[in-house]
Amino acid sequence: MKHFRGVFDVENVNALISEAIWMKHNPLAHAGLGKGKKLGMIFMNPSLRTRLSTEMAARDLGMDVQVLNMGDAWTPDFEEGSVMDGQEVEHIKEAAGVLGRYFDMLAIRAFPGLLDREADDAEGVLRAFEQYGKKPILSLESATRHPLQSLADMITLEEQKKKKSPKVVLTWAPHVKSLPQAVPLSFAEWTLAAGYDLHIAHPAGLGLDPRFTHGAHITNDQNEALAGADFIYVKNWSKREPYGVPYEDGASWMLNEKRLDIAPNARIMHCLPVRRNVELSDDLLDSPRSLVLEQAENRLWAARVVLKNMLTDILINEKAAIPY
Amino acid sequence: MKHFRGVFDVENVNALISEAIWMKHNPLAHAGLGKGKKLGMIFMNPSLRTRLSTEMAARDLGMDVQVLNMGDAWTPDFEEGSVMDGQEVEHIKEAAGVLGRYFDMLAIRAFPGLLDREADDAEGVLRAFEQYGKKPILSLESATRHPLQSLADMITLEEQKKKKSPKVVLTWAPHVKSLPQAVPLSFAEWTLAAGYDLHIAHPAGLGLDPRFTHGAHITNDQNEALAGADFIYVKNWSKREPYGVPYEDGASWMLNEKRLDIAPNARIMHCLPVRRNVELSDDLLDSPRSLVLEQAENRLWAARVVLKNMLTDILINEKAAIPY
Amino acid sequence: MKHFRGVFDVENVNALISEAIWMKHNPLAHAGLGKGKKLGMIFMNPSLRTRLSTEMAARDLGMDVQVLNMGDAWTPDFEEGSVMDGQEVEHIKEAAGVLGRYFDMLAIRAFPGLLDREADDAEGVLRAFEQYGKKPILSLESATRHPLQSLADMITLEEQKKKKSPKVVLTWAPHVKSLPQAVPLSFAEWTLAAGYDLHIAHPAGLGLDPRFTHGAHITNDQNEALAGADFIYVKNWSKREPYGVPYEDGASWMLNEKRLDIAPNARIMHCLPVRRNVELSDDLLDSPRSLVLEQAENRLWAARVVLKNMLTDILINEKAAIPY
Repeated sequence: MKHFRGVFDVENVNALISEAIWMKHNPLAHAGLGKGKKLGMIFMNPSLRTRLSTEMAARDLGMDVQVLNMGDAWTPDFEEGSVMDGQEVEHIKEAAGVLGRYFDMLAIRAFPGLLDREADDAEGVLRAFEQYGKKPILSLESATRHPLQSLADMITLEEQKKKKSPKVVLTWAPHVKSLPQAVPLSFAEWTLAAGYDLHIAHPAGLGLDPRFTHGAHITNDQNEALAGADFIYVKNWSKREPYGVPYEDGASWMLNEKRLDIAPNARIMHCLPVRRNVELSDDLLDSPRSLVLEQAENRLWAARVVLKNMLTDILINEKAAIPY
Repeated sequence: MKHFRGVFDVENVNALISEAIWMKHNPLAHAGLGKGKKLGMIFMNPSLRTRLSTEMAARDLGMDVQVLNMGDAWTPDFEEGSVMDGQEVEHIKEAAGVLGRYFDMLAIRAFPGLLDREADDAEGVLRAFEQYGKKPILSLESATRHPLQSLADMITLEEQKKKKSPKVVLTWAPHVKSLPQAVPLSFAEWTLAAGYDLHIAHPAGLGLDPRFTHGAHITNDQNEALAGADFIYVKNWSKREPYGVPYEDGASWMLNEKRLDIAPNARIMHCLPVRRNVELSDDLLDSPRSLVLEQAENRLWAARVVLKNMLTDILINEKAAIPY
Repeated sequence: MKHFRGVFDVENVNALISEAIWMKHNPLAHAGLGKGKKLGMIFMNPSLRTRLSTEMAARDLGMDVQVLNMGDAWTPDFEEGSVMDGQEVEHIKEAAGVLGRYFDMLAIRAFPGLLDREADDAEGVLRAFEQYGKKPILSLESATRHPLQSLADMITLEEQKKKKSPKVVLTWAPHVKSLPQAVPLSFAEWTLAAGYDLHIAHPAGLGLDPRFTHGAHITNDQNEALAGADFIYVKNWSKREPYGVPYEDGASWMLNEKRLDIAPNARIMHCLPVRRNVELSDDLLDSPRSLVLEQAENRLWAARVVLKNMLTDILINEKAAIPY
């Protein structure tokens, strides 16, 4: 695997999931694989789980890691031909160019602006780091995808499922802010690629990009989707049309124990952070139904298996013998 | 030692002090004890000495360390049953829950709010990380205690004392801000637990919580306390009643060389940072009387001995042979 | 080499450049030299390249590194005899004193204030860390010099030059802000110390401190300087008199391909970050003439060779056998 930007970078999704679970049971395997290899983690947006789990996984593989918070203080200029007489002090051509000289692999976190759908869909930030950095790219969540989260979710489904073909539901949930669609889009493309039976429920007007959801059962009737569910993935997202606008009349979409009488065996999933009693009730989050900590813990193994495969690709290209 | 939150977590205070001093003379001992063990350091408040010394000590023991600044941007919601439609984006149940899944040990820095005495006395932040993180807790200063500072102070006293039972004085000092009582409370409980003869001097109305100072000689006459002192610990704190209010008429409590004619052999201690010529005069801080850099340096050995004992406890509980 | 604050700390400039190039071809040499040695990197100002390259070089030599951002939140008080009742919470005597107790080497980034020329010329911040820290000092850019950048520039010149005595030009360039003179001053003293034929061009009124430029050919005619140049170093700086004031009528000084008809073989250098189409045109930065990424990459080897020589000095002073 050269890059890891979405499920399209994975040759065999189910093999990757199996390998991650194998690693979780063999945590000392590959411990020196990344020795001398340098990972630069660049955050254009804040991060907790992603930063901690990816840095930890990289160090556990022996990599050298440096973390760079770009934040407000230093956002590069991404425009071709820009006359840089404004706020931006550095162009992405130099910023990514230098990072590509320092590191063997660049991990990038870049949320969408939620102002211009075409721009967000084009994934300009990730592409610019790839084009000018000239090094393998590991997405730490981009405008339209959160592949490390989705892989952790797939690991969790594989570990927790009690039947060969569980019913998996992705349901919209209320929130107080306007959120990106990256997590639900990414969850959809991964579950479908892994062969799950995916049902998506959301209020009318909150449809997701069909390029990601093709093959799923989509409904505006939450109860229809929930009935008999084995796994329920709960997530807010904002509208695709008009783009980035939040839906504000969805309070009744919040799940609690009572609502789940129709899905007595369902386990609850959420990528975190979760707003308690807005997105999901305390009674569900505090119950054994909840898998949210298992998902978060599996971020470690998602990052580990992806880094292991990217490192292997680098080592093969160096025509060096893999040191084990 | 499972947790380290206060002197009550220490079985034998003087043995711990002796072990720290032994380590200072044998700095390469235990170098690989923490290999593969992960320490998460979580700062709800800024830190210089504590962050540097604890991270350094943990790495010197071979641990993997990750530092997380929570700060203003991301303070968890600590309220049970909260409807999270406000500023807080994550509840402590998830925040600590995830951190507990990632790390073997959680080090927490959390100052008091100084608004609600009962809440601060209850040490809710530290307790919540312990309850939901389910991992050993290392206090990096909490609402009512700063045990790593106090242990460093005990090491300094032990190294510097010229007689078996020196006279140790804790004196209030003026400041320009309202400061917590954690350092003086903690110094009191450690000196008393270590068997020192402790004298506390402060202006009327600045009494410390008697649960921490029981056994000390307390006076509002600074000169009475200072006379013949061997060690003078200088520190500002705000009032316990009304809670958190600073005392503003205390300029005459600032010590300088002249004031110490009555304690010609006294060495000066302060936890730093110190406001020169407000809390303590230049002539004292710049003289050989000052032990402030010795105290700061001993933070390294306080952290080292505590981490060594906490790691040992983890390793014993793993029923693994300790690799030394 | 005990300290590294400017070219005056280097015994033999050309030998240091050669050693850096040797290291670039032997990157695994000296890998364990810094084992157990601790580097504290203190940033009073933001940094990208300097932070990443210095930390990376130090870790590649086996050092333990800790990074401290002082920033606005915690600028020490540098005034002797200060009554500290204002914003500053700690004096440099304690701040540097503690850092000196924790680390074997202190790396300091401190820009000039650009308000008081005498104060900036006196390099008070660097000197205070040296005086109170009592440890070897590595400058990460100070008020008047940026020696790691200059050494990287010398490595780049040595690698790229096609003749024994190339014509090297330092030309002023326009900018939108008031910038320090540290990079041009430092480039001047290093090129002159390395024996290069240096030409400096700037608008009238932008003369650099002659103590740094003695021996260079200085002109206000940019074309005269550029004609037949082999290397053109492009950099903005503000006025020395009145101090720190930017020059605002210099738009015509921006170089582009057309302007360089008179220097057909010239390669372009810049320390980065560069404002595209303000300081330098896209057509030059995007052409093979540009050496800016080579310079940035050589920051790694500048830092590596300097740290190696400073570590060697420490080890010799420890009277320990160097472990190689």
